[in-house]
Amino acid sequence: MHLQTIIDDVYAKLSPRRGEGKVANYIPALARIDPNKFGIAAVSVDGEIARAGDADETFSIQSISKAFVLTLALGQVGNGLWSRVGREPSGSAFNSIVQLEHEHGIPRNPLINAGAIAVCDVVLGHQRPTAAKAMILGFLRDLACDESIAIDLEVARSEAATGFRNASLANFMKSFDIIDNDVENVLDVYFHQCAIAMSCTQLARAGLFLAAGGRDPITKRKIIREVRARRINAIMMTCGHYDASGDFAFHVGLPGKSGVGGGILCISPGDAAIAVWSPGLNEQGNSALGTAAMEEIAKATNWSVFD
Amino acid sequence: MHLQTIIDDVYAKLSPRRGEGKVANYIPALARIDPNKFGIAAVSVDGEIARAGDADETFSIQSISKAFVLTLALGQVGNGLWSRVGREPSGSAFNSIVQLEHEHGIPRNPLINAGAIAVCDVVLGHQRPTAAKAMILGFLRDLACDESIAIDLEVARSEAATGFRNASLANFMKSFDIIDNDVENVLDVYFHQCAIAMSCTQLARAGLFLAAGGRDPITKRKIIREVRARRINAIMMTCGHYDASGDFAFHVGLPGKSGVGGGILCISPGDAAIAVWSPGLNEQGNSALGTAAMEEIAKATNWSVFD
Amino acid sequence: MHLQTIIDDVYAKLSPRRGEGKVANYIPALARIDPNKFGIAAVSVDGEIARAGDADETFSIQSISKAFVLTLALGQVGNGLWSRVGREPSGSAFNSIVQLEHEHGIPRNPLINAGAIAVCDVVLGHQRPTAAKAMILGFLRDLACDESIAIDLEVARSEAATGFRNASLANFMKSFDIIDNDVENVLDVYFHQCAIAMSCTQLARAGLFLAAGGRDPITKRKIIREVRARRINAIMMTCGHYDASGDFAFHVGLPGKSGVGGGILCISPGDAAIAVWSPGLNEQGNSALGTAAMEEIAKATNWSVFD
Amino acid sequence: MHLQTIIDDVYAKLSPRRGEGKVANYIPALARIDPNKFGIAAVSVDGEIARAGDADETFSIQSISKAFVLTLALGQVGNGLWSRVGREPSGSAFNSIVQLEHEHGIPRNPLINAGAIAVCDVVLGHQRPTAAKAMILGFLRDLACDESIAIDLEVARSEAATGFRNASLANFMKSFDIIDNDVENVLDVYFHQCAIAMSCTQLARAGLFLAAGGRDPITKRKIIREVRARRINAIMMTCGHYDASGDFAFHVGLPGKSGVGGGILCISPGDAAIAVWSPGLNEQGNSALGTAAMEEIAKATNWSVFD
Repeated sequence: MHLQTIIDDVYAKLSPRRGEGKVANYIPALARIDPNKFGIAAVSVDGEIARAGDADETFSIQSISKAFVLTLALGQVGNGLWSRVGREPSGSAFNSIVQLEHEHGIPRNPLINAGAIAVCDVVLGHQRPTAAKAMILGFLRDLACDESIAIDLEVARSEAATGFRNASLANFMKSFDIIDNDVENVLDVYFHQCAIAMSCTQLARAGLFLAAGGRDPITKRKIIREVRARRINAIMMTCGHYDASGDFAFHVGLPGKSGVGGGILCISPGDAAIAVWSPGLNEQGNSALGTAAMEEIAKATNWSVFD
Repeated sequence: MHLQTIIDDVYAKLSPRRGEGKVANYIPALARIDPNKFGIAAVSVDGEIARAGDADETFSIQSISKAFVLTLALGQVGNGLWSRVGREPSGSAFNSIVQLEHEHGIPRNPLINAGAIAVCDVVLGHQRPTAAKAMILGFLRDLACDESIAIDLEVARSEAATGFRNASLANFMKSFDIIDNDVENVLDVYFHQCAIAMSCTQLARAGLFLAAGGRDPITKRKIIREVRARRINAIMMTCGHYDASGDFAFHVGLPGKSGVGGGILCISPGDAAIAVWSPGLNEQGNSALGTAAMEEIAKATNWSVFD
Repeated sequence: MHLQTIIDDVYAKLSPRRGEGKVANYIPALARIDPNKFGIAAVSVDGEIARAGDADETFSIQSISKAFVLTLALGQVGNGLWSRVGREPSGSAFNSIVQLEHEHGIPRNPLINAGAIAVCDVVLGHQRPTAAKAMILGFLRDLACDESIAIDLEVARSEAATGFRNASLANFMKSFDIIDNDVENVLDVYFHQCAIAMSCTQLARAGLFLAAGGRDPITKRKIIREVRARRINAIMMTCGHYDASGDFAFHVGLPGKSGVGGGILCISPGDAAIAVWSPGLNEQGNSALGTAAMEEIAKATNWSVFD
Repeated sequence: MHLQTIIDDVYAKLSPRRGEGKVANYIPALARIDPNKFGIAAVSVDGEIARAGDADETFSIQSISKAFVLTLALGQVGNGLWSRVGREPSGSAFNSIVQLEHEHGIPRNPLINAGAIAVCDVVLGHQRPTAAKAMILGFLRDLACDESIAIDLEVARSEAATGFRNASLANFMKSFDIIDNDVENVLDVYFHQCAIAMSCTQLARAGLFLAAGGRDPITKRKIIREVRARRINAIMMTCGHYDASGDFAFHVGLPGKSGVGGGILCISPGDAAIAVWSPGLNEQGNSALGTAAMEEIAKATNWSVFD
C-alpha cells in the first residue's frame, strides 16, 4: 500500500482519540499547547514524504534532541564518549538520580536526562555555550535541509527557571568529575537543545540518515559511518523511551526516541523515518496517541526490526 | 560469502582466545567443564547448517531455556502472562531482588531469574512437576527435531541443593501472590529447565522458528503467530543479556539469550539462528568468547536488525 | 506520684481511643483479636507492680521476642554475633530485603525480621529445633518467674503457612552463608518464638533486668553483664520500632521493642519496665494506642533517657 | 573520680594512637590539618571544666553545627519544621540522595546533609544570607559565652567551590518544593555554618544546655524548653553519626554529633557536655580517635543514658 494512504488511515483511525493523556505542565509554554494537536509525517529512504494532520506545525522536540546531540558527540570524540556514559537501559524514570549514586556518577545511557547532560558537556567542550547551541541547531538544520528550524527561547528560559532536578543531576555528576565544564554552561546548552522547535516533517527528514545506514538517501551526503548509525538505533531501541523502552520494542518493534512535548521519532532501517506528535502523555511520560500511532503504522507497513 | 566459510573464519580467528573468562563454579557439574570448549552452529532459514569446533557437544543451556519456556507460557495463557511479569529491562543483576520489592513482587521481565520462575509457575499450572518438566523437554525436542535432548539430572540436583537465591526470589513473589503453586514445585520445574543439555546445533535448530516469523522454515510447521515471534525477539533484544543487554544490542545488534553455562542463542530475523558455546564468562555473566563470536559473525554476515 | 495512679490516669485518658489503628490480619489468629483490648503493666526496679485494663490477658508478643532472643544469643556467642548481623537502624520496613542485597546478606540489626532470623540461627546452633524452642520459652519463663508462659501453636502454624516473606529473607541470607542451619529449621524456631503468648504483666516482669543493669532486682539474680544490658537498650533505642525508631525516641525517649500483635515493651533504666498492649497498629506497624500510652507514661513519670 | 583526672587518663591512654584514621582532604584547608592534633574538653553541669591536649585550639566544626542550627530553627518555627524534614535514621551515607528520591524530596533527619540544608532554608527565612550567617554565629557565641568564635572564610569559600554534591541535594529538594529560598543563598548559609571554627572547650560549653534540660546551668539562662532539649538529644542519639549512629549508641551510649573536621560533641544528660577533636576519620566519616575517646570517657565516668 502507498505510504500516504497508510498514514492517512492511521490518522483517521486515531483522530477520534485526540486529547488522550496528560499534557506536560511543568512550564507554561508546554502547558498551554492544544491537547488536540495530532500530526504524523514519514519520509522514506526513496524520498517519498507522507503527512497527516498537524504534520507541519512545530512543537518542542524536547528529549528527541538527545538522539541528535548523541550523534554530534560521537562525531566529536568517538567511542571515548563511553567512558562518561553507559549504554544500558536504566530501569528507572527519566530523571532518576538513584542509579547515579549506585554507579559513581556515570549515567546509564545517553538518552536519560543525566546521560544527555553528560553528552552536552562533551559537545560543549572548550566552546562557549553560544557556539555549542549554534552548532547543535546548525546540525539539525543541515539534517532537515531547513534553515528555518529555531530554538523556542521562551521554552528554554522556562526550562532554566524550573530545572532544579536537572541541576541536581548535573551537580551530582560534577561531584564525580563526570562533567568538565561549569554546570551552568552545560545546563544552558541542555535547556536550549530541549527547546528546539520542529515539525513532524522536519523531524522525520532530519532522522532519515538513521534509516539509511548513516547516509542521507536524498542528498546522498554521508552523515556518519554505517556501524555508528546501527549503534545509535540500538541505543534508541533499548533506551529511547525511558522505563517503557521494553514495552515500545514489544509493541512497535522499531528504534525510537520520545520527548515530553509529545513527539516521537521512529526509525525503520532501510525503510523510513517517522515522526508523530500528540501532546498528551501516558504514565511513562511518552505521547499516548503517538505511541498508539507508531504501533498502528508499524502494523500497517509491516515494519519491524524483529522479523 | 558462504555461511560455513564465515563460521569457519570466526572460529579460526577466535580460537586462540579459548579459555578467556571465568567458568561458572557455583555447582561442581559446571565448574569442571573444560574452559577451552568452543563451538558455533548456525542454521539458516533456507535450511543451511554451518558448524565449527564443539558445535555438537552438549552443554547446560541454563537461562537460554527461559526464551523457550516463555514461548510455551504465551501459548498457554497468551497475553494474560503480562499481568504476572513485565517487559522492561531490569537495570540490575540477573538474580536481583531489589526491583521485586520496589514493584510489589512483579518481576521486570521473563528473562531474569524472578521472571522466569513466575513463567515456570504458569507453565506448571495445575500439572504435576513431572508433567511440566516432560512438556518443556518435549517442546525443545520437537523444535530441534531431536528426541535425544535430555535433562542433566546431576545439574538439576546441584541447582536445587544450592539454589537459595532462587528460593528467595520465589518465596518473595509468593508473598505477593505472584506465584500460584507451591514454591518447591515451581523451583523443581525451574531447576530442571535450567539443566537441559543441548548442543549448539540443537539450539540453533530449536530457535530457528524465531528467525522465520514463528514458522519452522524446514518442516514448514507453524509454531507460533508471527507477531508473537517478533515480540519474543523484542524481549530478547531488550532483556536477553541481563544488565549487558544494551551493550549486546550495541555491539551485536541481534536479539539473543545467554546462559551461565556459556551458551548464547541469537536470532537474525529472516536470516538464521546462531548458537555459540564457550564456558568462560565475562563480568556480566555472559560468555566472553561467545559474545565476541556473535559480534564477529554479525559483522561478517552484515546481519543486524538496525540496518 | 504513685506508679499505679499514673498508670490508672493514662489508662483512663486513652481508654476512649480504644479501637484505633488496624489490627494485623495476615493470619486468622491475629485478625480475630478484639480491637478494644487495652492493657498496661509496669514493674519498677523496687518491685512495685502497677496494672490497668487487660494487663493480665495474654497476647502474641511477636517481634518483642527478638529482644529476648538477642539476649540469649549474646549469652551463647558473645560479640561474635556481630559478624552476622549489624547494629544500625535500617531506614526501611521491618521485612525489607533491599538492604540485604546491598550489604551482602548481612542484616542491619537484630530487631528487623532478617536480623532476628539470623539470631535464631545462632540460638539454634547444633540443637534440634525442639530444643531451641524449649530453650527460648524456658528463658522467658525464668525471666518472668512464671512457668505458665506458652507458645500459641495455632499462631505458630499460621505464621509458618504464610511466612513466604520470611522464607525469602532466610533463603537470601543462606545464599550468602549468613545462615548455617537448614532454612526450614531456622524458620521453625523463628515462627515459634514470634508465637509466644504473654501478658503485659509477664512482659514487663521479664524485661525488668534491662532496667536494672542486667540483674533481676527482685530475685537479685544476675542475668547478663551490665554493659550488655546497656547495649541491648541501645539497640532497642535505635532499632526497636523499625522505621519509626527515630520517632519513638523523639516522642517517648525510652528504649523499647514493639510487636505486630500490638504489644510494646519499654525500659526506663534505673526505673522500671513497662508493657502495653492494644492490637490496632499505626502505619509503621507499631501499636497506635500503645505508642500513645508510652508517650503519656513517659511524660507523667518524667522518665526519659535524654534528660 | 575527678573529671579532670578522667580526661587526663583518657588523653594519656589514647595519645599514642594520634594520627589514626584519614584526614578529610576534599578541601585544602582541611587536608593540611596536622593529623596528630588531639584535644578533649568537658564542662559539667556544675560548671567544672576539664581539658586535655589541644582542647583550646580551634578547628572546623563542620556538621556539629547541624545540632545548633536545628535548635535555632526549632526556636523559629517550632514543630512546623517536621513537615520539611523527618526524624528517622537514614540507613545510608551522610550525603546520599537515594533516600530523597524514594521519599519525595523530604530528607530523613536534620543531621544528614540534605536535612541540614533544609533546616538552613528555614533559618534563612526571609532574611538575607548575611543576616542568617550572623544569627547562627551569634547564637554559638552566646551559647559559648565567647565573642571570639568566628567563621573560617577560607574553609567556607572552599566548601562553596567544591560543594557539587550539596548543590545536587539542594536542587533536588528545590524540585520538590522543600526549599523556599534560592538554592545559592541556602548553600551560602550552609557552607558558612559548616566553616565555623571552635575549640573543644568552646563546643562543650556551647552544648552544655543540652545536658541541663535546655537551661545554661552556669548563667542560669533558659535556652530552650526541657522537652525540646530531650528531643534534640534523641535525634542526636538516633541520627548523629550518620550510618554509624547505631554503633555509637552501642559503644558510647550518649547522644552526640560528629563533624568531618574530626570533632565530636557528646551530651550526658544531667552530667556534662564533652567535646573531642582528632582529625583522622574512620570509614564512616567520624573521628577515629574521637570515637574511641568518647567510649573511654563514658566507661570511666560510667555515663550512659542506657543504665
